[in-house]
Amino acid sequence: MQLNKQQLQGLPTPAYVYDTALLAATLDAIKAAVRDDANYHVHYAIKANDHPAILKQIAAAGLGADCVSGGEISAAIEAGFPAQKIGFAGVGKADWEIELAIKAGIGFFNVESREELEVISQIATALQTEARVCLRINPDVSANTHAHITTGREEDKFGIARQHMVEVIRLAQQLPYLSFVGLHFHIGSQLLDMTDYEALCARVNELQDLLEAEGITVPNINVGGGLGIDYADPDLHPIADFQNYIDTFRSHLRLRDGQQLHFEPGRAVVAQMGILLTRVLFVKHTETKDFVILDAGMTDLIRPALYGALHKIENISAEGSEVKTYDIVGPICESSDIFARDYQLPITKRGDLIAIRSAGAYGQTMASTYNHRSLPKTFLV
Amino acid sequence: MQLNKQQLQGLPTPAYVYDTALLAATLDAIKAAVRDDANYHVHYAIKANDHPAILKQIAAAGLGADCVSGGEISAAIEAGFPAQKIGFAGVGKADWEIELAIKAGIGFFNVESREELEVISQIATALQTEARVCLRINPDVSANTHAHITTGREEDKFGIARQHMVEVIRLAQQLPYLSFVGLHFHIGSQLLDMTDYEALCARVNELQDLLEAEGITVPNINVGGGLGIDYADPDLHPIADFQNYIDTFRSHLRLRDGQQLHFEPGRAVVAQMGILLTRVLFVKHTETKDFVILDAGMTDLIRPALYGALHKIENISAEGSEVKTYDIVGPICESSDIFARDYQLPITKRGDLIAIRSAGAYGQTMASTYNHRSLPKTFLV
Repeated sequence: MQLNKQQLQGLPTPAYVYDTALLAATLDAIKAAVRDDANYHVHYAIKANDHPAILKQIAAAGLGADCVSGGEISAAIEAGFPAQKIGFAGVGKADWEIELAIKAGIGFFNVESREELEVISQIATALQTEARVCLRINPDVSANTHAHITTGREEDKFGIARQHMVEVIRLAQQLPYLSFVGLHFHIGSQLLDMTDYEALCARVNELQDLLEAEGITVPNINVGGGLGIDYADPDLHPIADFQNYIDTFRSHLRLRDGQQLHFEPGRAVVAQMGILLTRVLFVKHTETKDFVILDAGMTDLIRPALYGALHKIENISAEGSEVKTYDIVGPICESSDIFARDYQLPITKRGDLIAIRSAGAYGQTMASTYNHRSLPKTFLV
Repeated sequence: MQLNKQQLQGLPTPAYVYDTALLAATLDAIKAAVRDDANYHVHYAIKANDHPAILKQIAAAGLGADCVSGGEISAAIEAGFPAQKIGFAGVGKADWEIELAIKAGIGFFNVESREELEVISQIATALQTEARVCLRINPDVSANTHAHITTGREEDKFGIARQHMVEVIRLAQQLPYLSFVGLHFHIGSQLLDMTDYEALCARVNELQDLLEAEGITVPNINVGGGLGIDYADPDLHPIADFQNYIDTFRSHLRLRDGQQLHFEPGRAVVAQMGILLTRVLFVKHTETKDFVILDAGMTDLIRPALYGALHKIENISAEGSEVKTYDIVGPICESSDIFARDYQLPITKRGDLIAIRSAGAYGQTMASTYNHRSLPKTFLV
């Protein structure tokens, strides 16, 4: 996003500031990458950012929604996503959430286990309403990313092992009030190396051959999300390379006639349009280090503390060219409340306005009121 | 806490359940450990649990409050803590928080830097109201605990280096509208080895000798908090050993005549009185592992994901004696949403009621609505 110093100066901090023009350009890039292919469907993963205005803008652009809770399904419908474009994923769907999803008439469940399949069938039977289910298959493809955000390996809690795929599909086909409509995969988050997705395509092709031999028809293939963004240089790559991402599947995935392909990006849609705007409370000089102490902390943006994530940090107020090395920390009474160690900024002083970049995804949605703090405010520009 | 199966059965989940009788017994134990010593003052660290009813119970028992934000100060006053028993700590105090604290007439600020001292003096001057300040000295004592929760080492963001102590005290004595009233220390969290506190006492004794030689009088010594609890066996140690903790300072710290000693326990006061009550959504069998999937997740209790913390987990519903090994996970779409790996529970089934123990501290206060979930409910029993 383009940081407009004048515009930001007057805002209270800490606050999330979202650039809706960049979001619009990103949504255009997604449409361009899909190239009017009517069989390609992009569902936005709401957990990345569930701000109502942002959901509305994404729904208006024609995307579907990938939801992981009853709350998200309600928010999606409220924002204007058509129910049939909503998928419901997650290893721990509560009964009330399953019921809500069936009643809403969502497009499909991404089912994570045989046990869940049985529960959905029971609830659908009680409601006398058919539930459309995709089975989430664990592709056992290990993506090259942070351990906390890798989800496609066999020892993960997610999905159904591929050696059980056929029998669980047969179960789905037999259970009352279930309609088996496809397969779902997801190999991880913040992926930038397309060979990870090529490996997924190879695995899906192999499984499709196997299913064809078994006479099983699969109307929908859902390859999940995970497309990464450039945290190091958001201005160089303000919009993720959706073209390359979708083309990877176009080239490597052998779709059957009429088969629908679904994508579920989250981070790549919203990360770069957001900054966490914060002010410097103190610059603390010590013998060994200088600390920039911000009014934003891990309560506002927990990714650095939780995942060791590094966001680009900019001093918007500084005017000189001389730089200095700082530890950039928050005000929370926790040693983990650190945004960056040994980070270079222009000479920074109390009151300076700081932008923590690429904070549109997994920022505000993960905020807490720990230390009895207020939740960060939001501004759309 | 004693788990009453009958009582818990009817409660909605996920929910925090607090045993106010255990809290009362804990507060009695603290009073007994203090032994009517009028120079000893215990301040409860509100960040551990800021539930209004719990704050009221602790205030009514006569404890003071250790606050780290303006929100906590307001909550403390609301709960009945007298302002003069409130301390305000934290590396990143915002101007509005400093102003609120001065206007409220709190007992003392724990000041973390020379820069903060100057800002407090400016605000106090503008308000024409004296601010009482303790200086937080970094004792450079390394406590044997988790890297995220160790705060007494020189490279931490916390406190003033001891080699600058004298000059910063002189500054505090010179700056307008400041009154220097003491020294503050804090070496870390979840400490169970009293030799860590003995090391702190030795360091404080050394610094006091130095200050005496400089002719500086120190009315108050605040040794912070950090007393740990038994996460592995909460029933064996439902109440932390406050006697041993306070006696360690009684034996090793050389207080001057009339000098007041302050303690700031948080976790040890409230952790054991709380459980996170949750139900089993699914027991998922896979080739390599069995997963117990709970309706509580890292949004409700983030300590396992954030610190790798392990809480004792009990199946309240199970009746047989046969045990099995499970990974115990939450419903959130994150690989880090794991409460325990390879954990033994009695044979567990869908619908079973599970207690995650020792969750009274740093549980509810750190909860978030990530995945558009509701905050966990609370019940006092």
